[in-house]
Amino acid sequence: MSTPAPLRVALIGTAFMGRAHSQAWRVAPRMFELPREPEMAVIVGRDPERTEATARQQGWREAVTDWRDVVERDDIDVIDICTPGDSHAEIALAALAAGKHVLCEKPLANTVAEAELMAAAARDAAELGVLAMCGFSYRRTPAIALMQRIVAEGRLGEIRHVRAQYLQDWISDPDAPLTWRLDKEKAGSGALGDIGAHIIDTSQWVSASVITAVSAQLRTFVPTRPVLGESSGLGGRGVEDQPRGPVTVDDAAAWTATFDNGALGVFEATRMALGRLNANRVEINGSTGSIAFDFERMNELEFYDAADEAGLQGFRRIQVTEPEHPYLDAWWPAGHGLGYEHTFVHEVVDLVRGIAAGGGTHPTFDDAAQVQRVLAAVEASAGDESRLTQVEAAR
Amino acid sequence: MSTPAPLRVALIGTAFMGRAHSQAWRVAPRMFELPREPEMAVIVGRDPERTEATARQQGWREAVTDWRDVVERDDIDVIDICTPGDSHAEIALAALAAGKHVLCEKPLANTVAEAELMAAAARDAAELGVLAMCGFSYRRTPAIALMQRIVAEGRLGEIRHVRAQYLQDWISDPDAPLTWRLDKEKAGSGALGDIGAHIIDTSQWVSASVITAVSAQLRTFVPTRPVLGESSGLGGRGVEDQPRGPVTVDDAAAWTATFDNGALGVFEATRMALGRLNANRVEINGSTGSIAFDFERMNELEFYDAADEAGLQGFRRIQVTEPEHPYLDAWWPAGHGLGYEHTFVHEVVDLVRGIAAGGGTHPTFDDAAQVQRVLAAVEASAGDESRLTQVEAAR
Amino acid sequence: MSTPAPLRVALIGTAFMGRAHSQAWRVAPRMFELPREPEMAVIVGRDPERTEATARQQGWREAVTDWRDVVERDDIDVIDICTPGDSHAEIALAALAAGKHVLCEKPLANTVAEAELMAAAARDAAELGVLAMCGFSYRRTPAIALMQRIVAEGRLGEIRHVRAQYLQDWISDPDAPLTWRLDKEKAGSGALGDIGAHIIDTSQWVSASVITAVSAQLRTFVPTRPVLGESSGLGGRGVEDQPRGPVTVDDAAAWTATFDNGALGVFEATRMALGRLNANRVEINGSTGSIAFDFERMNELEFYDAADEAGLQGFRRIQVTEPEHPYLDAWWPAGHGLGYEHTFVHEVVDLVRGIAAGGGTHPTFDDAAQVQRVLAAVEASAGDESRLTQVEAAR
Amino acid sequence: MSTPAPLRVALIGTAFMGRAHSQAWRVAPRMFELPREPEMAVIVGRDPERTEATARQQGWREAVTDWRDVVERDDIDVIDICTPGDSHAEIALAALAAGKHVLCEKPLANTVAEAELMAAAARDAAELGVLAMCGFSYRRTPAIALMQRIVAEGRLGEIRHVRAQYLQDWISDPDAPLTWRLDKEKAGSGALGDIGAHIIDTSQWVSASVITAVSAQLRTFVPTRPVLGESSGLGGRGVEDQPRGPVTVDDAAAWTATFDNGALGVFEATRMALGRLNANRVEINGSTGSIAFDFERMNELEFYDAADEAGLQGFRRIQVTEPEHPYLDAWWPAGHGLGYEHTFVHEVVDLVRGIAAGGGTHPTFDDAAQVQRVLAAVEASAGDESRLTQVEAAR
Repeated sequence: MSTPAPLRVALIGTAFMGRAHSQAWRVAPRMFELPREPEMAVIVGRDPERTEATARQQGWREAVTDWRDVVERDDIDVIDICTPGDSHAEIALAALAAGKHVLCEKPLANTVAEAELMAAAARDAAELGVLAMCGFSYRRTPAIALMQRIVAEGRLGEIRHVRAQYLQDWISDPDAPLTWRLDKEKAGSGALGDIGAHIIDTSQWVSASVITAVSAQLRTFVPTRPVLGESSGLGGRGVEDQPRGPVTVDDAAAWTATFDNGALGVFEATRMALGRLNANRVEINGSTGSIAFDFERMNELEFYDAADEAGLQGFRRIQVTEPEHPYLDAWWPAGHGLGYEHTFVHEVVDLVRGIAAGGGTHPTFDDAAQVQRVLAAVEASAGDESRLTQVEAAR
Repeated sequence: MSTPAPLRVALIGTAFMGRAHSQAWRVAPRMFELPREPEMAVIVGRDPERTEATARQQGWREAVTDWRDVVERDDIDVIDICTPGDSHAEIALAALAAGKHVLCEKPLANTVAEAELMAAAARDAAELGVLAMCGFSYRRTPAIALMQRIVAEGRLGEIRHVRAQYLQDWISDPDAPLTWRLDKEKAGSGALGDIGAHIIDTSQWVSASVITAVSAQLRTFVPTRPVLGESSGLGGRGVEDQPRGPVTVDDAAAWTATFDNGALGVFEATRMALGRLNANRVEINGSTGSIAFDFERMNELEFYDAADEAGLQGFRRIQVTEPEHPYLDAWWPAGHGLGYEHTFVHEVVDLVRGIAAGGGTHPTFDDAAQVQRVLAAVEASAGDESRLTQVEAAR
Repeated sequence: MSTPAPLRVALIGTAFMGRAHSQAWRVAPRMFELPREPEMAVIVGRDPERTEATARQQGWREAVTDWRDVVERDDIDVIDICTPGDSHAEIALAALAAGKHVLCEKPLANTVAEAELMAAAARDAAELGVLAMCGFSYRRTPAIALMQRIVAEGRLGEIRHVRAQYLQDWISDPDAPLTWRLDKEKAGSGALGDIGAHIIDTSQWVSASVITAVSAQLRTFVPTRPVLGESSGLGGRGVEDQPRGPVTVDDAAAWTATFDNGALGVFEATRMALGRLNANRVEINGSTGSIAFDFERMNELEFYDAADEAGLQGFRRIQVTEPEHPYLDAWWPAGHGLGYEHTFVHEVVDLVRGIAAGGGTHPTFDDAAQVQRVLAAVEASAGDESRLTQVEAAR
Repeated sequence: MSTPAPLRVALIGTAFMGRAHSQAWRVAPRMFELPREPEMAVIVGRDPERTEATARQQGWREAVTDWRDVVERDDIDVIDICTPGDSHAEIALAALAAGKHVLCEKPLANTVAEAELMAAAARDAAELGVLAMCGFSYRRTPAIALMQRIVAEGRLGEIRHVRAQYLQDWISDPDAPLTWRLDKEKAGSGALGDIGAHIIDTSQWVSASVITAVSAQLRTFVPTRPVLGESSGLGGRGVEDQPRGPVTVDDAAAWTATFDNGALGVFEATRMALGRLNANRVEINGSTGSIAFDFERMNELEFYDAADEAGLQGFRRIQVTEPEHPYLDAWWPAGHGLGYEHTFVHEVVDLVRGIAAGGGTHPTFDDAAQVQRVLAAVEASAGDESRLTQVEAAR
């Protein structure tokens, strides 16, 4: 029996996500049995020096500066897109057209129109065995995957409530600087698209249902922030003397939602919840059970089973670290938890297995386009006196 | 120095709240130093036998059946109204007109119009030294009172987020019977007015701000429920053979809100959150601190102080059981927690002290009318495609 | 049918415990159906003025200063002993000899010899229908009573581990004053007898097993403390100028234990665990289940059932506030927790019911004497190089 | 400036620890700036086929079967020993003699005599710039490292209590098989040496103090267990028909301890605490602060500061995920936790930095020998009626 061909990967992007994905490609084949061995072939970045350094540091064989050269190369099988959202569509469409498998960071795009184009291209590519997957990595948190399994097994009965929050505090300080993430041109939206997108995806996936309408409010609590100058320091001036520029995205978003299974959703995404560092939370209440999760305790899942004997009922704190749990048989003994980056390792594992199997991976670009349509509806509602706004149907 | 005159109390209502208030009147003068000694003089109920039995059991001197006789009596100083909401206005107006101090259970009334009338009467009475207080008893939970103090001291800075939930599950079972609480004629509204009212009051009081607009959804997940027949049992028939009648109130309510201090509010009240028994929760995030509370752990308060040294910051679990904490110096040593009923004891303590001092108690009927106006705005918004709806100004 | 005779109670002691017991006698007949109605007849204290004031404040009909007069009176049925431990034996023996039912605060006595005498007297009295009960009130915490029921039902299988801690911090400050509780003559022992006694009683009762041997260490971390002078204040002097006297009891005690069912016990009692206010904790691990309790969250019990489906196992947070739980059907709706003092209410309820039934209450004086024997063995072991020391058998 | 020479590593052992160390060597140079680049040169295992497979899977360049060949090789700089404890001494002594840096898994040895020999050899080697480090990896949990820093900064004041537990449940089932870990010949001891060793090391390191005497009990709750036969399955027979062999080590160990700083220690290590998967816990109470940790929530540390304002005091839940925390600036944004394996990454990072710096790493073999002496004292005390037994002084 011949050894299967390796899977040659090109990663585009050298920042935070590029680093997390590098770690995933490195670790996945060592901890999991994979049908094809990934090769960390090429990393792409705009700055040649920085890209070269990242390649060395992260162990990519080659460093190049133009993604266009790479998507056409014969010796590349997978394009992993870790750039800001405004370039996703162009890169992904080119890569799919060139027959490359694509892993694209979230949010899929900055507009619904782009997302729909990408989803259509992905459907076409799928017929040729070419895979496209969007990086909503939290789906690969074992506790969230277990949550999805529990719901899919019907243990919660009829779903009534979805309660999702993503609370951070990194710009709680009004003198935190004006980065590109606070500029609508570049970032698309603020807390909504950055972290709100995650809880939309998680709650739709876990509840096996889609959001059909939303009623929303957005807030920008701190309207101007210090502009970072050319020099890295403040040059003797205090922050109060800094010139300030406008924040053009939301600091926080809140919305109620209706799901197509009849559930009532309550969502909140904010970067201003002081003391909450990464409280990515979902709770679902059904007619026969409930589940609750908080990423700040990512190795735990709370599960309430109404079938438990009366007088002995209560939320169970499941330590999602046992071999019965998703992804866990490849790791350590029970009680030895995983960390944030493992969600990316699992993403890569599922992608590689999907490529070998010829399909079946998720979230698809269609799933991701649905998230984009919800984001758009949230913005539309917030701009229309919070009126309940239908989420567009997929085209 | 002469002994101050006792304070002669008449309690109207013999059900759950009547029992809780009886306990409060009994215990308050034993654990706290009070300026006047309350006397449990008269209890009023419609059923003579049941009222007589309650009087004996709870230690009321006299049992009568018509509240109208009582509000006029010279030997009564305080009227404590524990009846369903549809009779509050009539009783309270009569009592205030007769110069009696009034403690009225929440919600103050079933309509804004009634609530406004009552508030106006209370303002008039106040000029004569007659007090009116509404029974939003959770204000007297020591941890919530501490929360209010922390905010009032300015420790949170500018308030950005108010996140309040009141989650219960007592009608999660679709075969739970159709009680009067599920009938709009009698109960006014469902989860919204019953428990939503509490989190509106708490969040407005603690944040020293009022809600100015809301965007809401209401849900009735179980539209019909078994009608309880004449006989107490099912008479050989299973619940599936029971006739079912319509539920005419909400099972759940969710709304986003704007506060007049600029904060963004997210609220949810439900009787269908399986596994959550009495999760009456409020969290407030400000620019320099955060606080969080859950009544399921009523003796604890979480407090985050951004002034703590970097690297050592975190939510503190304050056990609100120390003599420095509100109401606690009258009770037990540190670490020996209180229970639900103590909130009523504290309510009575504050009322008696207010009567002796000639004023200053809260929540006033004005405070309670404001809650009523928010409830009305929530219903209006839910009936108008969730459109952001202004809360009426106080007249 | 004639009304049953009331139960006339005399309470001896006006301090913290006297206040807690007063509250219990007051509340028990109002919240529970009792076979006989307790009457708060007489309170006894050494200081006439203070006793009179307490009688008025707490609602005792009569105040007297010599307990000897009271134990002989025909119009008294129950003697409730809330004095320091060194007077328990004399009072209890006299009361039992006079045919009075006795409720005696813990620890039962300051020595094993006294405790044995009291237990023998109680056994004799029981034959005449006279009851004696020791006030290990934590047994009446609903969560602890539920714990006991869970073990008794066999749900934990074979018991392997008993892990009990009672952590407080009230003398963590080395300048906390030298009270009588720190004087061996008066208090018998320190943390050991005061709070260690509770976890011994709880763990023996819950596990249905007795401790047969212990290996112990005692510590006095702060050997001298400021002596409080005649004047209440420091008179211009700082605490560093105060005269200091010797602490003659333990600040902390730790011991391992063997139970007669084969379980291994680990115990710790301390008044120096900074930040732990009343962490009275017990955890039991068996072959098929585990339970864990912490009084700082007294309305919760953690329960692990190994029979739960693999992958869904975890400690359940049971909110012990439901009608199925011990004592709870007399109180409030689910999720509305109780407080510290309710344990005393339940104690009185069980005592009154036991008196009417002619027996069956616990802890008996025999149970309490067993605790005393364990305390003695702990002290003996600590004085004998921690050698494993047998707990004396009951005589 | 020339590139520093790479650090060529040979790993001995292919089981669980071998896999964890492989991951550490792989990841450390990618996430941290290291002064020398580790090379995964050789892996050593007894079974040629299995070793070959592990080399391929884990990315070691070469696979060999005799560790003796490797320790002498010129092209190897570091020997990483992940074999069972009975071979540690021989390998480590040979490696140090050959001038190789050594990382040796814990416990350092199976006897005090061996440990002392190794410590002496390490002291000699240190003079030549050759480093020896013992793999008590939990020291590199960021929260435990932060704990150590907090104590070292004097924030806790005088240390009074050390409370350490390591609770697991993996052989709670009496039909769990008789593995080599339950055989004294091979494993040295049971829960005591395997997991008790960790809490001894952590508590000594964090408290900057050593244990001077112990009083202990050991237990074997399940004296015989099924012997696993040649075939992997049960061959049609139920477990009740399996031959059973004797368990010759402890299932659980409990001891009280004295520290040289005067603190009172209480320790428990068990493999039978049903429901506790990896509850590696340490709590320290001092005169001005307390800290508490549980590995089941490894990214959190509880810290109580008595200097906090009265009424606002409480244990803070520090999320140890911020750049101010040990090791965290190399990882992800705040709130994005780490997992079990990261402790090994940090171990490798510190070792490589120590090698480049010529010393300063910990735990030294002397530290590890001290742990061994405590283990020996625990066993001696348990065999001598739990008598308080002095821990031998270091030679």
